[in-house]
Amino acid sequence: MEPPNPYIKKYLMTAGPTPIPPQVSQAMAEPPLYHRGPAFQEILRRVLGRLPAMFGTDNDVLMFGAAGTGAMESAVANLVRPGEPVLACAAGKFGDRWIELCEAYGAELWRYEPGWGRRLDAGEIDRLLTEQPDVRVVFATLSETSTGIVHDIQAIAESARAHGAILAVDVISGLGATELRQDEWGVDVVVAGSQKALMCPPGLSFASVSERALEHAAEPGGMGRYYLDWARTAKAQRKDPPNSPFTPPVNIVRALDVALGLIEDEGLDQVLARHDLLARAARAGAGALGLDLYGDPDERSTVVTAIELPATIDGGKVPKLLRDRYGITANGGQEQLKGRILRIAHCGYFGAFDILTTLSALELVLSELGHDVEMGTGVGAAQQVFLEAGVPVPSA
Amino acid sequence: MEPPNPYIKKYLMTAGPTPIPPQVSQAMAEPPLYHRGPAFQEILRRVLGRLPAMFGTDNDVLMFGAAGTGAMESAVANLVRPGEPVLACAAGKFGDRWIELCEAYGAELWRYEPGWGRRLDAGEIDRLLTEQPDVRVVFATLSETSTGIVHDIQAIAESARAHGAILAVDVISGLGATELRQDEWGVDVVVAGSQKALMCPPGLSFASVSERALEHAAEPGGMGRYYLDWARTAKAQRKDPPNSPFTPPVNIVRALDVALGLIEDEGLDQVLARHDLLARAARAGAGALGLDLYGDPDERSTVVTAIELPATIDGGKVPKLLRDRYGITANGGQEQLKGRILRIAHCGYFGAFDILTTLSALELVLSELGHDVEMGTGVGAAQQVFLEAGVPVPSA
Repeated sequence: MEPPNPYIKKYLMTAGPTPIPPQVSQAMAEPPLYHRGPAFQEILRRVLGRLPAMFGTDNDVLMFGAAGTGAMESAVANLVRPGEPVLACAAGKFGDRWIELCEAYGAELWRYEPGWGRRLDAGEIDRLLTEQPDVRVVFATLSETSTGIVHDIQAIAESARAHGAILAVDVISGLGATELRQDEWGVDVVVAGSQKALMCPPGLSFASVSERALEHAAEPGGMGRYYLDWARTAKAQRKDPPNSPFTPPVNIVRALDVALGLIEDEGLDQVLARHDLLARAARAGAGALGLDLYGDPDERSTVVTAIELPATIDGGKVPKLLRDRYGITANGGQEQLKGRILRIAHCGYFGAFDILTTLSALELVLSELGHDVEMGTGVGAAQQVFLEAGVPVPSA
Repeated sequence: MEPPNPYIKKYLMTAGPTPIPPQVSQAMAEPPLYHRGPAFQEILRRVLGRLPAMFGTDNDVLMFGAAGTGAMESAVANLVRPGEPVLACAAGKFGDRWIELCEAYGAELWRYEPGWGRRLDAGEIDRLLTEQPDVRVVFATLSETSTGIVHDIQAIAESARAHGAILAVDVISGLGATELRQDEWGVDVVVAGSQKALMCPPGLSFASVSERALEHAAEPGGMGRYYLDWARTAKAQRKDPPNSPFTPPVNIVRALDVALGLIEDEGLDQVLARHDLLARAARAGAGALGLDLYGDPDERSTVVTAIELPATIDGGKVPKLLRDRYGITANGGQEQLKGRILRIAHCGYFGAFDILTTLSALELVLSELGHDVEMGTGVGAAQQVFLEAGVPVPSA
């Protein structure tokens, strides 16, 4: 194969970092603001005011200058006490991260691992919590980016609440891409990141923390924490004007202000409807190409569509060909799914033509790899979904 | 006083965030790159290759998507074992942060606190380590941003080495603004941030860690750590192509690549000479205005010049008037120094006219507050320093 053409037009189709709107890019280039001056305080106040609606909460949403994993670690560092039992639910790479974090913080760890690609079963979680009544914290994932599965957090929250356990949920790829009603569902802690459906570059993450969880965090006996300490961050953010305990990534906060404004303008309901529509189109396209979806997706799987690649081709070549020949950076599978799946992202600044572009490139690549594809089949099926939706489709 | 004029031309004169060059701003606005794709890997490789020269080291420089405090915490989280004795040296706000971090991680804490504005005395550190021979780690600060003092880390490193202790130094505001020869001085761990003399926005921080310190970190018994774990980060960065364990703030890494290129082009020696010149001009300007420098500055104090404000005026009004009336955001004093000092920053993308602008605005403000100032006195003295330097002065 010839070397990649460096001049080819590039498309970012990964599930994080995601493409960002031009207005957000421009905000990134603004001169840095002093983080304790009135101009930044005004932006911080607006961002902190806008974030809770994204989570469906009245909580303060705590901000950390860190990747999403930093916010996940904040949940573990603030909630876990060495030797105390916790339950970590994992059905993919990001669920596994909860397990690794809980191990790093010395928890007595109970694991619920139904297998990658499976859906977490709230009934099973209920059973496990009945068996282990001392479990005080449950960790789970809303959207498992590695498999495309969106878990039923509402049902899992019911199970946790029935046993008096605190539930902490990673919604990093799900926030703004699939439904989340933190307070209505009774989820104590929700952690998220800037670089998915919030349409910002990576570098900022969030923890929406209930008063009950803050009280739990205040109990003694935890491991060391400072930068990710919830109480310190909450205290600074609750000042008037709001503050941050450390120098925040001011450019990303400014970008987030712009992105949250765009989401407000589009309307969160419409944003979620767009993600649902893009997911349905992606599923239809894959189906028309005779490709199965990976695992147990359902109508909640609106974040990323994981497609099983034909066993007859070298699946590891698909993302590489997409990138080097067509300029499209998309995610293959991670770890045990390497070479087995392609993930079509639709979380954030994605529109109809991103899905159609990815499907058309997939058709070309599959054909080149010797798979029998009639050009346009997947694209046409996805177009049909957009046509039937009968609404103007936002497109990036 | 009339309300601030929002249309006034703005100048960022703080010691962090600092102003950034237009090329770096433009890099911030580039579309996010996928962090595991070849385009970003190439940038990451170049950045990781360039960083050690800034530290004067052959170590791998570990990168964290976090504020400088995150990198400081990485040192404590990786080096401190609960109940083990450490020595924290503090002569200002950022030295105090080492104390707070060591407390958060359960160290048996010995403190050396000569007082804000004082210089850390290597002889005293030697004496303390003789008294407490079990101390395994010493924490200190190169440039104490809160007081303008640059400590003699070379001498402190000798004291630490004489007692077999690991020395970890915060160089956050000093890196690229004052001399640092990590390997030659024998400093085990150096932590830094992107938002000072590296001329980038905040959100990225660094730990340059010796093999000896990595071995210490690998000993069991530490508190929980994951996102800030050195071994995990080193392992990822040492891959070919280099990787990062979590999604890094890709836009800031890209900006850093540009900024490091600018520093290379100017030449690190010339960059340091420029900081020295700016500091001498700032000191001359303050002196000509009859103002004392705060604490024990010497020729090393090339990062920020802390000026004592006249006791006869309301010093707290100085930064406020600078900002609201003249559009200049500069740092006053923090905590116990509030209202007592003004800090003229010259770490990073600062040139002669930034110093002259700040001095001229200071003259105007002091005069408005009733202090007797002949306009141009401080400015003229600083100009004289530039004139005598007899070289083209880079200016922002």
